[in-house]
Amino acid sequence: MSTPAGRTILASTIAKTFVPELEEGLAKLGRKPLLVGFIANQDPAARTYAEYTEKVCHELGFAYEARDVQKEDLEEKIMQANVDDHVDGIIVYFPVFGGRQDQYIQQVVDYRKDVEGLSHIYIHNLYQNIRFLNSEQTQKSILPCTPLAVVKIMEYLGVYNKILEYGNRLYGKTVLVVNRSEIVGRPLAALLANDGAVVYSADVNDIQKFTRGDGLSKIKHQVTDVDISLKDAALQADVIITGVPSPEYKFPDEFVKYGAVCINFSSVKNFNVSVKEHASLYVPMTGKVTIMMLLRNLLRLCNNRALE
Amino acid sequence: MSTPAGRTILASTIAKTFVPELEEGLAKLGRKPLLVGFIANQDPAARTYAEYTEKVCHELGFAYEARDVQKEDLEEKIMQANVDDHVDGIIVYFPVFGGRQDQYIQQVVDYRKDVEGLSHIYIHNLYQNIRFLNSEQTQKSILPCTPLAVVKIMEYLGVYNKILEYGNRLYGKTVLVVNRSEIVGRPLAALLANDGAVVYSADVNDIQKFTRGDGLSKIKHQVTDVDISLKDAALQADVIITGVPSPEYKFPDEFVKYGAVCINFSSVKNFNVSVKEHASLYVPMTGKVTIMMLLRNLLRLCNNRALE
Repeated sequence: MSTPAGRTILASTIAKTFVPELEEGLAKLGRKPLLVGFIANQDPAARTYAEYTEKVCHELGFAYEARDVQKEDLEEKIMQANVDDHVDGIIVYFPVFGGRQDQYIQQVVDYRKDVEGLSHIYIHNLYQNIRFLNSEQTQKSILPCTPLAVVKIMEYLGVYNKILEYGNRLYGKTVLVVNRSEIVGRPLAALLANDGAVVYSADVNDIQKFTRGDGLSKIKHQVTDVDISLKDAALQADVIITGVPSPEYKFPDEFVKYGAVCINFSSVKNFNVSVKEHASLYVPMTGKVTIMMLLRNLLRLCNNRALE
Repeated sequence: MSTPAGRTILASTIAKTFVPELEEGLAKLGRKPLLVGFIANQDPAARTYAEYTEKVCHELGFAYEARDVQKEDLEEKIMQANVDDHVDGIIVYFPVFGGRQDQYIQQVVDYRKDVEGLSHIYIHNLYQNIRFLNSEQTQKSILPCTPLAVVKIMEYLGVYNKILEYGNRLYGKTVLVVNRSEIVGRPLAALLANDGAVVYSADVNDIQKFTRGDGLSKIKHQVTDVDISLKDAALQADVIITGVPSPEYKFPDEFVKYGAVCINFSSVKNFNVSVKEHASLYVPMTGKVTIMMLLRNLLRLCNNRALE
């Protein structure tokens, strides 16, 4: 088997392709939506991310306001922003308290302003493959930013086959997702299965298989525990997606089948550069696409609220 | 200082005092509400708890149905129970998947059937000291079972001073809560602070102080980080409440001031029996009161739904 020299595709390249859609959306809306970012920690990574988001907002014509707050005041400040008509979207930079208290805070954000798409109703709709918020199907549900960014990256890379019907465009594809967090890994596995892929979802404990199941009645994914090694799952995978937060973790090159697509959404690079000796396409980071999805969600939230 | 021989008060003794209220509530309702318990794990503790709940339900005149389900089917089964008019209350026995996926599942339970009071809206109302679900103040919010059980135990033990105004009956009292989980410790600390107590909330990392704050505008608790040792906080406490899940953990007797009230809500006993050489009143377990609160919440949910 030949050893193709894989190409690196940068998130910035993919992110650019969303500019026309966002500009068009803004023009249709006819006003400048305001995204508010709450910073209640001393984490320099949060501030960098906030500053980058602000830069992108200003370049594209969105308004952005960073609000520094004491962590004790955060809940109240979010509640005020929830009912403030000038605020269209809210993002909170975590960690603040850490652990479950942060998940509580995340749910304090009104789902109608939740650009990250992490409100229970959105995650529930994703798992249930429900695409609209109302029965009239005018208000579209929001997808969580990072899983959505990975889907859009896979579309850009041609993994989604546009000749197939919408909702079936990953049919025949096998994907490995190394991460099963409730923020990214599990919703991503469900999204990909809902689009027709066979997905192996790996976490430190085990490997699960997400499929859409057979039959017309199976509108949503099914999950089964499978007894397969990471290597065996990986060697079947057309796409390998990693999201391990540890800088020490590196996905072994030899687990990547020749021609596979490799995408890393962790903030640290989970693949060696040498993965390109196996992979055909390699996306080392996804953050810049995620911000585009944040703004795409912001426009959708504005449109949903306009229909209320 | 004298060394009083403290009394042990069993949860079963306190639980009995709620029987008349529950029977009266049932009579007013005029029908037998159905509580459904979902068991999707192999944990014998969950089954024991389910069987005990069933026993209490039958003794008091509530209907109870244990439903064994595969964990893969749990979400669907909860959704079916959510829209089934015959089901009045739902309890899920955790852990099922463990971690955040269990928290996701908990939020799938419709808040109108959530007897445990763990839906985001209820926890949010607790933290914000909001007592009703609607602006007409006809539908009462639900309090999470275990924190509510601890409050009721404190009322029984005379810690709440009924001469003081409602909402101020812990004024002048200092309480230490050793546990700051999102399920019990943190909501409990907030509840007690909302009732006027000074609360030290300890977890493995630090100690925080919950107070209601001063002034008429401060309707809800305030939280500050404090630099105090567990021993110093404990020695100020009129009430010490523990909820450490580890069987190895024992709260040191010498940290308990003479005459203090000691309550343990962990499923393992966090106090030595010898704590009674310091404590005036000692409640070793709270589970049986918690089940009474579950049924009290069930009646409240029935009444709330009848008003819709």
